[in-house]
Amino acid sequence: MKFNNRNIQIGRNVQLGTNVRIGDNCIIYDNVQIGDNSIITNDCVIGEPTGRYYHDENYINPATIIGANSMIRSHAIIYAGSVFGEGLMTGHRITVREGANFGINCLISTLADIQGNSNFGDYCRLYSNVHICEFSQLGNHVFVYPYTIFTNDPLPPSNHYKGPTIGDYTIVAVHSVVLPGVKIGENCLIGANSVVSRDIPDFSFAVGSPAKVQRDIRTISSKEAAGNHYPWMHRFERGMPWENIGFDNWVKK
Amino acid sequence: MKFNNRNIQIGRNVQLGTNVRIGDNCIIYDNVQIGDNSIITNDCVIGEPTGRYYHDENYINPATIIGANSMIRSHAIIYAGSVFGEGLMTGHRITVREGANFGINCLISTLADIQGNSNFGDYCRLYSNVHICEFSQLGNHVFVYPYTIFTNDPLPPSNHYKGPTIGDYTIVAVHSVVLPGVKIGENCLIGANSVVSRDIPDFSFAVGSPAKVQRDIRTISSKEAAGNHYPWMHRFERGMPWENIGFDNWVKK
Amino acid sequence: MKFNNRNIQIGRNVQLGTNVRIGDNCIIYDNVQIGDNSIITNDCVIGEPTGRYYHDENYINPATIIGANSMIRSHAIIYAGSVFGEGLMTGHRITVREGANFGINCLISTLADIQGNSNFGDYCRLYSNVHICEFSQLGNHVFVYPYTIFTNDPLPPSNHYKGPTIGDYTIVAVHSVVLPGVKIGENCLIGANSVVSRDIPDFSFAVGSPAKVQRDIRTISSKEAAGNHYPWMHRFERGMPWENIGFDNWVKK
Repeated sequence: MKFNNRNIQIGRNVQLGTNVRIGDNCIIYDNVQIGDNSIITNDCVIGEPTGRYYHDENYINPATIIGANSMIRSHAIIYAGSVFGEGLMTGHRITVREGANFGINCLISTLADIQGNSNFGDYCRLYSNVHICEFSQLGNHVFVYPYTIFTNDPLPPSNHYKGPTIGDYTIVAVHSVVLPGVKIGENCLIGANSVVSRDIPDFSFAVGSPAKVQRDIRTISSKEAAGNHYPWMHRFERGMPWENIGFDNWVKK
Repeated sequence: MKFNNRNIQIGRNVQLGTNVRIGDNCIIYDNVQIGDNSIITNDCVIGEPTGRYYHDENYINPATIIGANSMIRSHAIIYAGSVFGEGLMTGHRITVREGANFGINCLISTLADIQGNSNFGDYCRLYSNVHICEFSQLGNHVFVYPYTIFTNDPLPPSNHYKGPTIGDYTIVAVHSVVLPGVKIGENCLIGANSVVSRDIPDFSFAVGSPAKVQRDIRTISSKEAAGNHYPWMHRFERGMPWENIGFDNWVKK
Repeated sequence: MKFNNRNIQIGRNVQLGTNVRIGDNCIIYDNVQIGDNSIITNDCVIGEPTGRYYHDENYINPATIIGANSMIRSHAIIYAGSVFGEGLMTGHRITVREGANFGINCLISTLADIQGNSNFGDYCRLYSNVHICEFSQLGNHVFVYPYTIFTNDPLPPSNHYKGPTIGDYTIVAVHSVVLPGVKIGENCLIGANSVVSRDIPDFSFAVGSPAKVQRDIRTISSKEAAGNHYPWMHRFERGMPWENIGFDNWVKK
């Protein structure tokens, strides 16, 4: 029952790579490019136009680029004007607004709400129902766990937006809030249900509301093996570029 | 590729104003009224019937009224028996249950879940993924930021529902919980991640779990200009009725 | 306008009981069984295949079983390989992954995200936007209120998953987090916005971050009548098997 080409609509100047498959009831708007071997499952909207589309006869839909080998699960809404490196993987019902730039091999899970005008490095994992505000800057290998929110308005409502900045390899656990303009360094762990209101230095484990640095993450014992768990790259490799070769060997490359 | 009239279903006694446009795959149930110049984008359901529809042959769908100049983004589900003043603007995948009454120019953002049997004044802004319980009462110009929840059952589970009441111009920041029956006054600011368990007087800045009044909001400095930021109506006017004329002039009118 | 059989797709070896109704734009994949008198409303996906479906020509979709007298509201995505006892009731846009086993008469509300490989007893109520992680174990009559998250990774990211376990008749209030491997006993009440980081004994009222036991729930007064509110089964019977006969009589049966 795969790919019956039922009720699909494809706009103008859509470029589909070889072996791209589009599910039923999908809408692909103008100026979308989808890389080779990608799969768009049912009921997705790719290249959703911004509001001006409905009012301006001269509206031109910005280019949307989905890299090769991507897999977009059903009911995604991806706005025009976003760019995704190869190997994008999504859950269901994601929403990504315009101006989001993603590196390669990123994951965006079910119900994640990416507000656009933000940058994401390679291998980021945005889990279920995260909300990433405009003007956020995420490094590489950043993991944001479910229901975490990034915010950008320090005195709501205002016109003074400043998104958070998150360093490489940092983990933000579930149900946390990162306040406007906060910088979290590299290799940090933010504990569940935290509110991060101040900058956090590299290699910190911080938790609480407001989040306070508790210790150096390099002192947290593993629960799976002897030694410490963080930096996690020596303990976890599923889906990471160092899978099967180890982090140290990958870094040397 | 706008408005191809593909796979649209329109029930009985549906009244569409002049220049109303309906997107593909939409379902408009019986007794829906949509005001002039409104846009319903793809995959929306307007006038969703309540459970009795499926079991009772004599079921009559309650009237649903969407005011003029509204813009409903894709995948909305709006139940029969709700009323929206003109200028409604929505994000994607909103859900609004029966018996919700909205004033004019309200915003309901992506994934917001409005449980119905509630009242909302004019120019309310309900941001992404808020959850507003039944029997809530919101004044005018109330802003509720992402992932905030209003609750109505003081001893769950019980049959003793009491929704929150929120005064005009009050701002509830992200990731907060307002407990059953709580009254938040006018011109308040509730800080991020608060749990509001007691009534909050007018002009308070309250934060924490449980939320405690910290100070008068009129003493909070602006980050954008000299002077104080609150009441915010002198600092923020985008989309508000005092845009371009200033709050003081608007009040005098 | 009910059930027009528009744009429906039905896979191979789908077994529909008598009087089953399927809404427009639904997709029912291979090897789905739906019990008598069930209603699947519009835009649902039942038996969603796992990722291997798209890459493996020999993929066989696991069986999906929906019990009799179920009502699945629109835009549900239910993966292949889950089993639901009779009387399942859902809100809109639920997502249930593979390997979820539900008892009879469960409720899964709007936007709930059930990650699969979990067990749920009879008469569980999972309210709006809850997130239940893999390897969770819920007893009978467990109520999980909106935006509560269950987690299973104690040192994220790791490979050491342990889901929470929740005893019969326990209530977890809104916006709470239950940490990996935590056991909450029977007849507990977890207050709003808690983070449950340690095991909680039977009959406890616990609240806070981290959640601490405050008192025996049997000492909490009712707000509706003389006496105490908990155990709640004497105070609340809507939709429960003791409705109209009383809990004590039902237990004796």
